[in-house]
Order: sequence, then structure tokens, then C-alpha cells
Amino acid sequence: MKTTFDGLRRRQALMAAAAALMSPRLALAQTDNPLPSWRDGPRRQALLDFVAAVTTEGGPDFVPPIERVATFDNDGTLWVEQPAYTQLFFILDRIRSMAPQHPEWTADAIFRAAIEGDMAALAAGGTAGLVKLAAAAQAGGSPEDFVKLAADWLETARDGRWHKPFTELVYQPMIEVLSFLRAKGFSTFIVTGGGVDFVRSFSERVYGVPRSQVVGSTFALKPGEADGRITLTREPTIDFVDDGPGKPVGIARHIGRRPIAAFGNSDGDYQMLRYTTEGTGRRLGMIVHHDDAGREYAYDRQSSIGHLEKALDEAPQRGWQVISMKDDWARIFP
Amino acid sequence: MKTTFDGLRRRQALMAAAAALMSPRLALAQTDNPLPSWRDGPRRQALLDFVAAVTTEGGPDFVPPIERVATFDNDGTLWVEQPAYTQLFFILDRIRSMAPQHPEWTADAIFRAAIEGDMAALAAGGTAGLVKLAAAAQAGGSPEDFVKLAADWLETARDGRWHKPFTELVYQPMIEVLSFLRAKGFSTFIVTGGGVDFVRSFSERVYGVPRSQVVGSTFALKPGEADGRITLTREPTIDFVDDGPGKPVGIARHIGRRPIAAFGNSDGDYQMLRYTTEGTGRRLGMIVHHDDAGREYAYDRQSSIGHLEKALDEAPQRGWQVISMKDDWARIFP
Repeated sequence: MKTTFDGLRRRQALMAAAAALMSPRLALAQTDNPLPSWRDGPRRQALLDFVAAVTTEGGPDFVPPIERVATFDNDGTLWVEQPAYTQLFFILDRIRSMAPQHPEWTADAIFRAAIEGDMAALAAGGTAGLVKLAAAAQAGGSPEDFVKLAADWLETARDGRWHKPFTELVYQPMIEVLSFLRAKGFSTFIVTGGGVDFVRSFSERVYGVPRSQVVGSTFALKPGEADGRITLTREPTIDFVDDGPGKPVGIARHIGRRPIAAFGNSDGDYQMLRYTTEGTGRRLGMIVHHDDAGREYAYDRQSSIGHLEKALDEAPQRGWQVISMKDDWARIFP
Repeated sequence: MKTTFDGLRRRQALMAAAAALMSPRLALAQTDNPLPSWRDGPRRQALLDFVAAVTTEGGPDFVPPIERVATFDNDGTLWVEQPAYTQLFFILDRIRSMAPQHPEWTADAIFRAAIEGDMAALAAGGTAGLVKLAAAAQAGGSPEDFVKLAADWLETARDGRWHKPFTELVYQPMIEVLSFLRAKGFSTFIVTGGGVDFVRSFSERVYGVPRSQVVGSTFALKPGEADGRITLTREPTIDFVDDGPGKPVGIARHIGRRPIAAFGNSDGDYQMLRYTTEGTGRRLGMIVHHDDAGREYAYDRQSSIGHLEKALDEAPQRGWQVISMKDDWARIFP
């Protein structure tokens, strides 16, 4: 390994190497082709061109490493979100496992729907019903307890179509983007509408993204003391919704810097994509379009989960790249 | 440069090198003595012993790099906080420069006190008065605007005693601790009662800490749209106070992991120190004790700024190291 010892170049090379080494799927980013699961075409090329532009020292679009922030939605962008968000399956399993200790739940339609797995009744309960279940299933303990609960569940839970762990239903091409960007000196953040601690329970192992680089929706945390120790308790109140207009807010609060690249798949990412690409200088906005019913799912305007309409309509005028899973991805899962 | 290419060791070496290279005062951490501004003694030794213990692979106290989180208070721990918090000087300067556009302020006692620099009247206004000034001086713009405002102010503002930029009134021994820990694979976070965007305006340049690794108090951010662009506006409402019991809350929300080391200097850091050292496994809690009136300031129980009493009283039983600025630091400023 030959290294040059002149200041910035040495520093950048080391940082890029270190960042890349965080990822379990490093090897892919280190070969001549950093995006082996992407088919040649305009989307892959747009990605490569963008990264080349912002990392070329002395070039007109150069961005220093500390400002190379890229944000990724999670559900539907990094992993499967159909037929329902993974966190909803977690919540339903939690409700079922807690039900014996809560006989009062049987008197409540939304809890009965959860316990019986009656998806139609769950849908009929709307957002209010889901929030009620989410709070019952996920509040009460500490953040540390919750991360462990979620991690334990992900170990054993299997999805209904592929019968695999949910953490294997991540999109290999996007894993490659994460690794590639980190290898190029980017910091990669997940900006999810899901619960921040739920995503943190697997972000390091699966995406190579440290917990502190996950921005998400949160329950209120109540500080207290018990048995001579400081406690933090997840209250049954959602105090921040990191979705839609909340995503730029979450980014500004947590990251403190406007991203130069953002990746999403639904109208919940519309504001994040705009906030990113409305910044000055070269920017990249990409939308994962689910158009591959055979290998994954096909949905956009008609779907309530991952509803994609406004962002799709405005993509051409805003210069956002719409990724066709069917055409652009040679491979979907690792 | 000879490197071994066996997995973890290579990865750790690169990460440590990359982390160290983030810091402008790198050289100091790369010599045989990583803490040259510290005098030999039990505090320096406690620090070295702790770092050796948690980084020794196969040892009983080994902690993987991803879990090596260290948190630092800012005011009074990393830089001077007397005779008043730097951010207060910023607020007062802002109020004075905005005053001509706000003739209505002259009818308000707290604004008059600010404009006239009447510290006694400011003190008489209490927290409510300061919050009012803070909001008037710091709300209204975007977070990006605010970071620039603060950075510009720090360029020209000088403190009243040394007549230096406030960013030169940082504690060199603590800068060395930040660099040393990063060189040993730690992530270093600032957890400040001050405004998050104020501290972000200099954290990268002065401490080598990325903006995303600053946790602090926040104004509510309101998302909106103007001239066809997404806007974020700092509302005149403080929606999170990252001080005292708020520090563990801020840590859990932002970092998502209990620190293994924490550094503070006042009772505002008491809960952070406890939250850190009440975790299982080897932990380090350190308190910067201001006992050097000659080179800096001497204050603890009697001071309203940086009030240190409970944490000092409980330090022995909790195993916290109390750093004597007078005895333990050979040098105070860079």
C-alpha cells in the first residue's frame, strides 16, 4: 500500500478507506465497478457523474468531505415496505405477545384487530388506531431495552413472501450506493418516517450506518430515577414525526447541514428531495420507483403505503432521477 | 508506512487515523505523549488507563469502536464560560445591532438592559428575561443563516479579559483529549446546554467535531415554503433544553447509545455523568474543576454560571475524576 503524505489527499484517502471499512459489504465498493448490481444506463451514470463532480478537487462542483452529506429514506428505499411496513409487523407481534397481560384489550376493536391479524379492521382504524397500537406496543421501557427488543424480533421474524429475515430484504443496489458514497468521503444518514430506535436496532449491522446517523420519528422520552439510577422512559406520545415536511426539520436539527444527495421512494420524501436539491451547487435527488412486480412489488399512485405521485410528477422538472427497479437494477436483494 | 492487513486491526488503525486527521491539532495526538498539556498525575493516568482498558482487544474491558462514544459539555468544559456564556455576548451584540429596527424595545426593561449592557439589570430579569432576549436575537431566520451569523460574529468578537477571539479560549488539554480519543477509535460528541446551531458554527473548525455530532438546546423549527423553495424558520420558542436531566434525553435521542466516557464541569452535567457511569462495564466520568484564578477563573459552589456542587460532592462515591485546572493542566489555552 503506497500512500502519498501530502495533507488533504492523504486525509481524504484515509477517511474514505475508514468509512468504507465500516460496511460489511466493503468488497463491492473497492473493485473497479462500485455499483455491480446496477445496470448500465442513465441512472447509474447520473450517480457516477455526480460523485465524480463533487469529489474532483479543483473542479467547479467540488465539495469538501465534511459537507458531503447524503440522506436515505428507509422503508421502500433501502428495504421492502410491502405489504406493510416491517415496523407494523413488529408492533402486531408485540401486541399479540403482550395480550395475555392485557385482558382489557379484548374490549377494544383496534386491539382485537391486531390480535387477530385482521388487516381490514386495522386499516379501518386509520392512523389513530395505528398510533394507539404503536404506543401500546412500544412505550414504557428505555430506549436501550427497545433497541434490544427490536433486534431480537428481527432475528426470528420472517416475511410472508420470501420467508426470510426482514434484514435480508434490503436492496443490494442501495447497499452498494451507501458503500460507494462512504468510500468517496460522504457521511450517509438514514432519515426515516419509522421509529428511530427501531431502525437503529439494525442500521449498523445491515447498512453500516451508526445509530447516531439515523434520524427518525420519536416517542417522548421522560427522564427519571429508579433504584438509584437515572432512567429514560419511552412515553406513549409521538413527539416528532420525521416524514414529509418533518424530514427537512429532522435533517436540520440532527445533521445541521443541507444534504447534497437524497434518496427516497415516496411522497413522504418529497420535501427532503426538494430541500436537498434546492441547495446551491451540484445536487442529486433520486427516487426508487417500484415497478418490478416479479422480483419485488409494483406500486406508486394507487398505493397507500409508499404513495408516490407528487414527487413522480415533479421529478422531470426538478431534475430528480427516477430509478426503475426493473430496468436499472440487475439484482434486487443481496 | 507499514500496515497489517488482518481485518479488525487494519480497520481500527485506519479509522483511528482518519478520525485523528479530522482534527487541526493532530500532531499532538500522534507523538508518544498524546496529552502533552497534562501534568503527570492521577487524572492524566486515569484517562490513559481507561483508554488502554477499553481499547485492549481480548482484555476484560474491551469495547468495540462503534460503542466508543464520549460526550463533552461545551461551556466551561471545552471553552471559557466566565464572566458569562459566550452565546450571551453574541445575543447582546445581536440585540444592539438589531435595536435601530426595533424602537419598541426601548419600552421594555430587559431590552434596555441588553442595549445598555447593564449586567445587573440583566441578572435581575432572570431566566425569563434571557429567554426573551435569546428568542428576539436568534429566531426568525433559517438554521443555515444562523450558523453563518454566529460564525461571522465569532470572527470579529473579542473577550474582555484576553482580548482574543472566543474560539481561542478553548482548553488545550481538552482539545488533546478529543484528538486522543478519536485517535483511539472513539466518536466524540458535544452535548451542550447552549444552542445547537451556535456551537455548530465553530465545532468543526475548532474541535474537529462534525455538526451532526453536536447535541444542544433547540428552537422550534417551522417548515414552510417561500418563492418556490422549502424554508425552515427558527421559531421564538425553545423546544428542547439540553441541560441537566435533558442531557441524557438528548444523548438517547441523538446518539442512540449510552456514552462510555463523559466530561463536564457543572451540575448541569450531573445527569450526563451519572447516565454515562451508571452503564455496565468500564466507564469514565471527569469534571473540569475551575480552581485557577490566575490563568483562568476559580469558581464552583458560589457561582451561578457553571454552578458545581452536587456533582463535586458526589464525585468521590461515584468514581468521577475531578480535574484541577491548576494542578493537572500545564497549559490552559492553545
